[in-house]
Amino acid sequence: MTSPTLELMHRHGSVRKYKADPVPVELIETCVAAAQRASTSSNLQVVSVVAVTDAATRARLAEICGQEHVAQAPVSLVWCADLRRLDRACELRGCTQVTGYVENFLVCAVDVGIAAQNGGLAAESLGLGMCYLGSIRNNVPGVIDLLKLPRLVFPVVGMTVGWPAALPIVRPRLPTAAILHRETYDPDPRDAALHEYDRTMIATGIYQGRQVPVPGKAGEMEDYGWLEHSARRVSQALRTDLRLVLKRQGFPLE
Amino acid sequence: MTSPTLELMHRHGSVRKYKADPVPVELIETCVAAAQRASTSSNLQVVSVVAVTDAATRARLAEICGQEHVAQAPVSLVWCADLRRLDRACELRGCTQVTGYVENFLVCAVDVGIAAQNGGLAAESLGLGMCYLGSIRNNVPGVIDLLKLPRLVFPVVGMTVGWPAALPIVRPRLPTAAILHRETYDPDPRDAALHEYDRTMIATGIYQGRQVPVPGKAGEMEDYGWLEHSARRVSQALRTDLRLVLKRQGFPLE
Repeated sequence: MTSPTLELMHRHGSVRKYKADPVPVELIETCVAAAQRASTSSNLQVVSVVAVTDAATRARLAEICGQEHVAQAPVSLVWCADLRRLDRACELRGCTQVTGYVENFLVCAVDVGIAAQNGGLAAESLGLGMCYLGSIRNNVPGVIDLLKLPRLVFPVVGMTVGWPAALPIVRPRLPTAAILHRETYDPDPRDAALHEYDRTMIATGIYQGRQVPVPGKAGEMEDYGWLEHSARRVSQALRTDLRLVLKRQGFPLE
Repeated sequence: MTSPTLELMHRHGSVRKYKADPVPVELIETCVAAAQRASTSSNLQVVSVVAVTDAATRARLAEICGQEHVAQAPVSLVWCADLRRLDRACELRGCTQVTGYVENFLVCAVDVGIAAQNGGLAAESLGLGMCYLGSIRNNVPGVIDLLKLPRLVFPVVGMTVGWPAALPIVRPRLPTAAILHRETYDPDPRDAALHEYDRTMIATGIYQGRQVPVPGKAGEMEDYGWLEHSARRVSQALRTDLRLVLKRQGFPLE
């Protein structure tokens, strides 16, 4: 079975090169309105979006993120956890909001992902391209300062949006059997699926034929693939300041 | 401008009553494969899904969540943060994974939201209905135990899936102007938009004509609306054990 939406999802690839044409503000509003239509925990609507289109601000955001295509894309959307609006609701109704627990931020982070994905897919359904920017977390204080984010607002993930300069590459994913578990979590690490995927990713040419030493076998070399790439990535400590920055923004994660 | 995907998004409402008909396993796989097509931070693919279809397990999950429709729905998907697979990748490549920082869990939480939304929307595009279950976090140790989730796997959000017994209610959302900011975050609390939305939600009849005292004005009553509803909800401390449970699962959020 298929559907236009499924076909759209299967064409998805991140776009990092955009045409110079601007994105009409009505289209941005259409995408954000689509984001709002997604489920929101207890209808609390704890997401806000800052749309950056000004060239100087985009250039500064690109510097902060360390990603050139942020300056080049006509729009960047910064998807924020926002409990400030509910703080105002509490003020208007004579209540005091609880914001201190992990749960209070986790609800926001998940709802940001849900909303941003609807917004991004909506953009793609209109012929736009997009790319998520985890890189806004490379320097959250810089983003907070640039976008003037107040207390109880936290930039969770960004997204460039624009007209694609070329069709994006659709990257293979792990076999569905490797991530889908039936009834309970299967403790088998599914090495066969991991190795199969490693070979699939090597075959795409994305790693440009790089070779690396075989672990534990002196002198032997093998292809650099997804396993090596991912292992190197996740053995680095990144963005170690988030706990502190979250606390300063009013999310102490108790 | 519109598209079949935008139209689908605008029809979304959470479904809490399902027909008894089962969901073929191929459809579940189709939805999870669609979830995988969404962006994933650095292609790390840190999401796993447990599909629960067994009637006894569904009944137990419904008890744990405190939500009846979990027992009634033919399928519940439990969307998990999963760094265990990357731990295996590290082991195979002679590295050691960093999992201690807020960032390491936040990447997973956002990617769970992104993947789950693609999966849920894919289901809706095939005529299925769905409802997110934040309620799996009411008792995470219960969920971990029931689904046998190992270390470095954490159930972030659940989702019932099935054939809707009736068309869902499409709830109004805040005006887009209230959540979309241009260039920088506008500090104005946008009270007019909040009050407009409050009246819109009261007009839906969802609050059944309830009345509440006007804050600060003894003896006066007014309609119970979204502001009061949300203020009451967020002034309760909920799920205060998550920090501890996350730490036990290998996510210390340093």
